[in-house]
Amino acid sequence: MATVKRYKKEDFETYCLGATVSMEYLNIRPQNVSRVFLHSAFHESETKDKIAKICEKHGIPVEVNDKVFSILSQKENCYVIAMVRKYRCELDPSASHVVLVNPSNAGNAGTIIRSAVGFGVPNIAIIRPAVDFFDPKVIRASMGALSRLNFKYYDSWKEYIENNNKEERHLYPFMLDGSKLLHEVVIEKPFSLIMGNEATGLPSAFAEVGQPVRIDHGDGIDSLNLPIATSIGLYEATKGSWSKE
Amino acid sequence: MATVKRYKKEDFETYCLGATVSMEYLNIRPQNVSRVFLHSAFHESETKDKIAKICEKHGIPVEVNDKVFSILSQKENCYVIAMVRKYRCELDPSASHVVLVNPSNAGNAGTIIRSAVGFGVPNIAIIRPAVDFFDPKVIRASMGALSRLNFKYYDSWKEYIENNNKEERHLYPFMLDGSKLLHEVVIEKPFSLIMGNEATGLPSAFAEVGQPVRIDHGDGIDSLNLPIATSIGLYEATKGSWSKE
Repeated sequence: MATVKRYKKEDFETYCLGATVSMEYLNIRPQNVSRVFLHSAFHESETKDKIAKICEKHGIPVEVNDKVFSILSQKENCYVIAMVRKYRCELDPSASHVVLVNPSNAGNAGTIIRSAVGFGVPNIAIIRPAVDFFDPKVIRASMGALSRLNFKYYDSWKEYIENNNKEERHLYPFMLDGSKLLHEVVIEKPFSLIMGNEATGLPSAFAEVGQPVRIDHGDGIDSLNLPIATSIGLYEATKGSWSKE
Repeated sequence: MATVKRYKKEDFETYCLGATVSMEYLNIRPQNVSRVFLHSAFHESETKDKIAKICEKHGIPVEVNDKVFSILSQKENCYVIAMVRKYRCELDPSASHVVLVNPSNAGNAGTIIRSAVGFGVPNIAIIRPAVDFFDPKVIRASMGALSRLNFKYYDSWKEYIENNNKEERHLYPFMLDGSKLLHEVVIEKPFSLIMGNEATGLPSAFAEVGQPVRIDHGDGIDSLNLPIATSIGLYEATKGSWSKE
């Protein structure tokens, strides 16, 4: 019988709440899934079969245990929980990146991860202090896309840039007073889109590190929300570079 | 002494949680603010003075009442609550719109409102069933931008389009299998960007109402999150049409 506790940052394990999110980890990183809990009210037989198959193949224990759900989940609709051993990733130093400077909100981080993976920029650098990307709220908001992401924490901007192909990299800090409009800038690869904290934005010193850009909008709002600004940057930087056809 | 209760959809009043959100309503729609509650621990004297001035001018009662905060707010950092009498808006039938078909999530609705106001498209049509735009969670996620929005509920797409300048309007349903890529379409004004439900998207029949568009992204994710897709649409449709300079 497993004992589980609500997530704390210092834990060695985290977890995926819900079938969709759990399936992403089972498909993409089965080697990191330590066990799967099912709720006794879980009756989607197709998903159940898929989970059983993957777990059997990788030797992952599966357990029906309703008590785990009452401890780990506040949502009524959560019937699958995958426990995930934390892992370390490296960024691809020659690839394009998103750099988040002091991001603080878990839901925002998850939404940004989903967009970064969706737009084919699955490398995110995080400058501390910052939200914990292994927080189950981040994983859930990412819809499991965290499993497809390379992410790495740095103590400073300097530490990041010294280790990530500084010579070749094109740097675009997003700032409310950026000197160029995003849609008028040609974003060259490999790029780093650099985004500040939700409340305070980027420190003004970032205007010196690259080409500061701003997203054109009216003055009915102070700023766009952070995942929106990040995703618009990713859209603009990658559009036309692929097609599903 | 005021008695207050947690928000219910059928109430005639709603409320703004927090100083920033409350200030938006006090600035933009003071006629709809029925009273303002302050927490005894609220000490930002500049904001306090502003609130006092607006409330005096418009005859809005102000009350220090900590109990109200323990009833209405779960957040620790909430020191101002503005009570707002609900009001009815009309859309501008000749303007560009966002049309949300069956949106279900309050946080998403708020984020979309913030973007729509920011990108100068402050007219949102909502097709029922749908989340309640007066929910305090919506107002808070909008950062108070709801105060600057015209929004109106319709029972059907037909009801919406018959009443909103059908002849002149250009319709762009956003669909995962849209026949054109967003960035290759010239979005003509007045436009309606039509967005489906978070989980199910638009019913396939919407492909017939206008030019279906899709946002180019990879297959690492099933779809972008709804406020992200809506905001990218708004960005693409409005970029270059204004500048802060």
